[in-house]
Order: sequence, then C-alpha cells, then structure tokens
Amino acid sequence: MPTPPSAATRIDTVMAAIRARISSRACLPGSRLPSVRAQAQSMGVSVSTVVEAYDRLVADGSISARPGSGFYVAGPVAPLALAQLGPPRDRDVDPLWVSRQSLEADPDVLKPGCGWLPASWMYEAGMRKALRAAARADVATLADYATPLGHPALRQLLARRLAQQGIDVPASQVMLAESGTQAVDLICRFLLQPGDTVLVDDPCYFNFHALLKAHRVTAVGVPYTPTGPDLEAFAAALQAHSPRLYITNAGIHNPTGATLSPVTAHRLLKLADASDLVIVEDDIFADFEETAAPRLAAYDGLTRVIQIGSFSKTISASLRCGYIAARGDWIDSLADLKLATSFGGGRLAADVLYTALTDSGYRKHMESVRRRLAQARSTTLSRLEAIGITPWLVPQAGMFLWCALPDGNDAATLARACLADGVVLAPGNAFSLSLRAGGFLRFNAAQAGDPRVTEVLARAMQA
Amino acid sequence: MPTPPSAATRIDTVMAAIRARISSRACLPGSRLPSVRAQAQSMGVSVSTVVEAYDRLVADGSISARPGSGFYVAGPVAPLALAQLGPPRDRDVDPLWVSRQSLEADPDVLKPGCGWLPASWMYEAGMRKALRAAARADVATLADYATPLGHPALRQLLARRLAQQGIDVPASQVMLAESGTQAVDLICRFLLQPGDTVLVDDPCYFNFHALLKAHRVTAVGVPYTPTGPDLEAFAAALQAHSPRLYITNAGIHNPTGATLSPVTAHRLLKLADASDLVIVEDDIFADFEETAAPRLAAYDGLTRVIQIGSFSKTISASLRCGYIAARGDWIDSLADLKLATSFGGGRLAADVLYTALTDSGYRKHMESVRRRLAQARSTTLSRLEAIGITPWLVPQAGMFLWCALPDGNDAATLARACLADGVVLAPGNAFSLSLRAGGFLRFNAAQAGDPRVTEVLARAMQA
Repeated sequence: MPTPPSAATRIDTVMAAIRARISSRACLPGSRLPSVRAQAQSMGVSVSTVVEAYDRLVADGSISARPGSGFYVAGPVAPLALAQLGPPRDRDVDPLWVSRQSLEADPDVLKPGCGWLPASWMYEAGMRKALRAAARADVATLADYATPLGHPALRQLLARRLAQQGIDVPASQVMLAESGTQAVDLICRFLLQPGDTVLVDDPCYFNFHALLKAHRVTAVGVPYTPTGPDLEAFAAALQAHSPRLYITNAGIHNPTGATLSPVTAHRLLKLADASDLVIVEDDIFADFEETAAPRLAAYDGLTRVIQIGSFSKTISASLRCGYIAARGDWIDSLADLKLATSFGGGRLAADVLYTALTDSGYRKHMESVRRRLAQARSTTLSRLEAIGITPWLVPQAGMFLWCALPDGNDAATLARACLADGVVLAPGNAFSLSLRAGGFLRFNAAQAGDPRVTEVLARAMQA
Repeated sequence: MPTPPSAATRIDTVMAAIRARISSRACLPGSRLPSVRAQAQSMGVSVSTVVEAYDRLVADGSISARPGSGFYVAGPVAPLALAQLGPPRDRDVDPLWVSRQSLEADPDVLKPGCGWLPASWMYEAGMRKALRAAARADVATLADYATPLGHPALRQLLARRLAQQGIDVPASQVMLAESGTQAVDLICRFLLQPGDTVLVDDPCYFNFHALLKAHRVTAVGVPYTPTGPDLEAFAAALQAHSPRLYITNAGIHNPTGATLSPVTAHRLLKLADASDLVIVEDDIFADFEETAAPRLAAYDGLTRVIQIGSFSKTISASLRCGYIAARGDWIDSLADLKLATSFGGGRLAADVLYTALTDSGYRKHMESVRRRLAQARSTTLSRLEAIGITPWLVPQAGMFLWCALPDGNDAATLARACLADGVVLAPGNAFSLSLRAGGFLRFNAAQAGDPRVTEVLARAMQA
C-alpha cells in the first residue's frame, strides 16, 4: 500500500535527521540508535513512522539491525566534511566561508576584512633577491629532502630571535613546519584526541575554530580583555571543562589588537600550572610590535608553553615556512609525526626565508611597514568614526581594528550587503564562539585605504 | 616498612607495563583498568604487588580510583609519540628510523637504500631557470596566499596529464597539496577514524606504515605478486577486516618494481566495488615509466579511486608540491580540510613547479633519467649477482631493485653492519608488515653506483 504524502514526508524527515547525525559524525559506526519508541517520542512522530524510516535506512545500508539488540550505525565512518560538522552556523560567520571570500576574491574587490597585508606591502625586494640567490644555490638545496628538524642555520636564527624575547632554547628545540597554521595543527595532532576541550580567546582568529573542528575537539571561548584573557572566566573554564590546551596570540591579539599585560601573563601561567594546561602561543605578528609585550613562553621557559610562528604576515604568504619551539622530548615526537605525515618540510622554502631574513633590508622593511600601518590605523579610525563606528580599543601596533557598529546594526547583515558591492568584511561573530560580537567588525587598516570602503559601509548602514 | 628489593622491582614492572599501555594510547583516558585480581593473574604477581602499584599510580596522577567501581586511566591523553605506539619494532626495520638514516646522513655516506635520486640526477637546470623566472614574477605570486584548490594553470596541466592516462577529470577536481605524502595524509584524515583498517601492499613503501600509525588505524598487508596484489589474499582481507581504504602505487611498485596487469586491475576494482573500498593510487613514479601500466583511476573514473602525485622524485624534493584528483564532492571537503589545517598551499612552489613542468627541457630530462636508470639497474644487478644477491623480478623501469640475499643472511643484521661502514641499506622487513622479507633488501640503482656498496656488503655477508 503506497504511503500517503504527508506520512511520506514524516518518514523522510526522520531519515534525514538520522542521516545528518551520521554524516556529521555525531553518531559513529557501531553506536546504537535510540529505540523505535524513544526516537518516535523525541521526534514527535508515530512508532510506525520510525519503523518505516529505520527499515529504509537498513535497506540502504546506513544502519544495521541486530535482532534482540536494536539498530546500529553502519560503517564506514562518514567522511570528515567540515561544512556538516557541529551546530550549523550562518554562512556569513562561518570561518571557512569567510576565508574563501577573501582568498578567492577578484583583484578589484576590496578586502578590509582579510587578515593579511596587500601583496604590495610585503617584502617584495627581499623575496626577489632571495629567489635569485636560490637560483644559484647548491644542488642539494634545489633538489634534496629536508632533514627532519629542518634548515639548521634558519633554526639557529630563530633560536637567536627567541633569545631576544627572553626564551632561551637551543636550535635543537626549534623545528620548522609548513606554516604557522600547520604548526598548530601538528601540535593538536600530538596532544589531543576527539572529544577533548581546547580554550581559545573570545573573540579569536577564526581559523582556529575550523582547525579545532577538524580535530573533533570542543572549543570553549574565554572573553578577552584589553590586557589579556579574563582571568576569572579563565579559571572557571579550567574548572568546568578540564581543557588540555589553550591557543592564543603572542604580541598583538587577533582580532582586538590588545596586548597581554605582565600581571595577566604571570597569573595565567599559575592557573595553567595548577591545571596541567598546555599553551600554544602564536607569534606570527611579532615583527609588527613597537614595544615587545610579555611572552608566555619567556615566563614559562617552554615547560608547558609552545611557541609557533611564521613570516606569512611580514615576508610572504606564498612561501610557506613556519616553526615550532617546544621542550625537547616534544620536539622529538613532533619531528616523527612530521616525517610520517609529510616526509619533511620545504628545504627550498627554508633557504629562501633564511636569505630574506638575514638580508639587511628586512629590518628597514618592517620599520616602513610599522610606520605605514600606524598611519593607516589613524586614517581608518577617523573615517570609521565619521560614520559612527568606534574602536573597542585603539591598538598600538598591528593591522587590526576591532570596531563596534552603532546600535541596531548587525555585522553579518552588513557584510552580506557590502559583499554584493565588492567589499569583503569580517563580521564579529566569525571570531566569537559565544556569538556575542554581532555588533563588531574587524578591519584591516592596510586593506581599508580606499575611501570606497567607508562609502559602501555607510550606504549599507543606512539601508 | 621499606619494600624488599625484589618486591620493589616487581612493583616497578607492573607500573611500567601500565604506563607503557597508557603512553602508547593502548588504554585511553576514562577506560577502566583490569581489577587488581585480574591484573595480578595476567602478570603473574601477587595481589599486594598490584595494590601497591595501583596506589602509586593514583598518587602520581596516572590513574584515578573510583570507589566501588575500580581504577581508570586519568586524562589527558598521552601525547602521540609514534616511537611508543604499536608493537615494538626493531629499530633497524622501523620506518622512521630507516628514513632518518638516509635523511640525516653525511654527504660521504653511501645511500643505496634510500628512496630518491641523487640531487645531481634531479632537474637542476629546470629548477634554476624556474627560480630565476619566479624572481621576476608578479608581486601576488611572491607574496599572496594561494586559493583553496591552488594554482589554476598547474591544475589544468595536471588534468591534461591525467587525461593522457585515460582519466578524464576537470581541473576543478584536482587540488594541490603540500606533497604526495601530505596528500595521502589529508585523505586519511578525511576518510578514516582511529580503529579502522587500511590495506597496503606487502611489501610496500614503508612510510605508509608510519603514516597509518599516526592515524591510529590498523594496517593489513596483502602480498604483492609480479602483476599486482594477490587477488585471493585481497578478497580474503576484505572479508576478514572490512577495510575502508587501500593505498598502493601506480605505475611502478615500491619496493618491488612490479607493475599492475590489466586483468588484476579490473578484478581488483570489482572486489573494491563489492566492498565499498576506497583506493588511493600514488602516482609519484609516473614519469619513470617506459610503457604506461594500467591506472586504477582510469578504469574506475575516480568513483572510488583517488589519485595522488607529486614531482618530488623527478624535479625536486626540496620544492614541496603535490596534488589530489578525486570526485568533486570529496575535493570540496578536502579543500575545506586543507584550509582549516594549513590555510592553503604554497603558491610560490606551485608557480615554480608549473614553470619547470612546462619547460621543454623536462621531457628531455626524464628521457635522460630513464636511460641512466636503465643502465644503473643493469650494472647494479650484475654486481649484486656476482655476490649472490638476486632480484625477485627484473623491473622494466624505475630506481628500485628488490633483491633476495643468499640463504642464511638476515637483511637487518647486514644493514646494521654496513651502516657502521658508511653504507645505508633498506632491509626488507621495514617494507613488510608481515615481517616475511627478512632476506630482502631494496636497492636504489641510482644510489648504488659506487663499487664500495657491493664491497662493504660482501664483507658484511662474509662476517
């Protein structure tokens, strides 16, 4: 007997809901489904509807029936499709979608929401010189695999930079990675298992959300203040969630531009000690600082703090070379993991980076970038203030301006409107797990120079 | 009352065994330890020994006691130290240790066991030319992040190469990766969960073993014949293990040099169809072939086969650029995963690779490499045969010679002796999960040219 249309829809709804839980890996193969009765009750449908739905799912192989035992999710595990994991997020504030808008934008699109300097601001002269030098390098540099830890001279240089920050570490405790993001990813593989909890700042660099999703861990945000994480909230989060890891920026906070105070650094580490928390300190903005903020890695001496970094923000995002500095036994294991999963790093990239970093021009380049950024921050803030958009704090360094919209404006709505007008913004809730930044936008001062930015924004705000 | 020495040793032994299970992640946080009685029985010690051991482990936080319930592994999960995972392997045949011997060897050490051409055989002229061109590239190429899928022209070129293999795929189904190994790694992250089973060839490229360990999956080897995997054993493995994935070489098998026959390819795919098996076909040796062997990806049309590749073996291992060709929905999800875990690939590396690949010199370069390799295989086989070492089969292409030692010789023992004499070999059991290749060595014809290789080997065999 053919199923009546409305009943057919109810069966489809039950099947779709179960399929969604399976494809989002909320239910893993081998796990038991709710009993027919319990499923009917929780979904507000009849038992016969669930019976039919379960039968069809058995028929297509999604679940299997064990007589006398119940219904179980069939293998294999659903592919890891990040877009289907976790609670559905509006696309406008989804980290991957937001990233793609900037990465895939046509050259004429303005990108005041993106997280990198325009190519013309990067160390072009240094890169050209370094590539010409690489073209004349020895054949081993041109063709051979890297050693497990990577380019020795570059690691020595990085160790010297760390020493200048007060972090005394031998070059043997510095390992090169493919990038800053990949460095954090490798550390997550090393220390975490699915279901663990990781603390992040709220707001924080939104790709951390996507990365932690890929690791199937729970990310918990701790509110960020102008001087670092809210310590009371941090202590409460440690108590409530027993997190394994805390990931944060060193130097200049992304997106707020705030800097860690010495007293917050010290107290944070005491809390971390008491909870056996590992901290990853992402130092990719180091060379944007005017005055050096405290480094957790310096206070801690790489006992429970791991520092990562790269030069994607200052020299080139095209080149791909980052690093990890950590305790020796962890570096040994991280090197094994790197070998197993990518058979070593980019030897040539490390060589090019080393040349660019040891070029006397790099220091002058960054002095110029810092000067231009200071000017750009000032100009951008004036223009934004003229249309009622005000900074949460005025940063002393870096490219980011975390700004509050006038009351009644929703950042995601504005971002959607401005995208249609060729301007890519970064709405606050992409950065905030608690979704409490709906009235904020992160501006990149280096990408906001075109007056069209504030024109388009003002127009969208009026509509 | 102080514990008598022998009793103290027994307590330490019990504690060490439990700690080893925890640090190898054999027991995960939250899992229940055996009861005191059961543990005492299985370890052949007294109950009081176990009681003392458990108490000490509770005291140091490794385990926790739940009154009335038992003892449980305490969190956090042990860091992923590959060296401690899985059944202990002799160092001589451990993939990571074997790799490091070649990667970290001094320049004067001979490496007939390594898996790559000497730097002097690689495409040096092409790399120098491509780097000079890159030094003159536009600033976006020098400084910007890559798009999620990567360099469009390179992907078009790769799609054309695939078409020549009979694999018709649009460039939108080709995604760049950091390397061939990283491509396989990303696919493993996408399709597998810990505890899954993956089929590999026996023998196979040994870094696959290390990679699969990092994914906490069980690797099962299927014996390889001169025409491809043993189909009967393959069918039995599908039945016994319900594997999710099978990883293999395309073209030229590593380490045996065998090639897949059309009938094996066809039958293998029928078996895969019946079991919903996904196959990763690693095509990094494509340009070493004299005649093209069947490609599973071509027969299958990228339904359940994923092809990966790179030019680390032919152009440069220093450069880092690989690719994945797969069905469209998987490519979309893989791109998200790549974005989340490394924020995109090497734009500059892709540009340099594209220049080198489209250089008219590349074809001539590979013709020369194939010629030199044919000569080197012939010379090496003669020298080996003179000391009683014979090939399992005579390969028609590629660098590898999979050779049997005369009876009574153990490859790992010989490798150890030769290492002390400055010659790095590749003992057969590094490649074989079933450890049935103890009498085999894999020689790299391009790295075996120095007569010292056979001299040292002969000397070690006599001893």
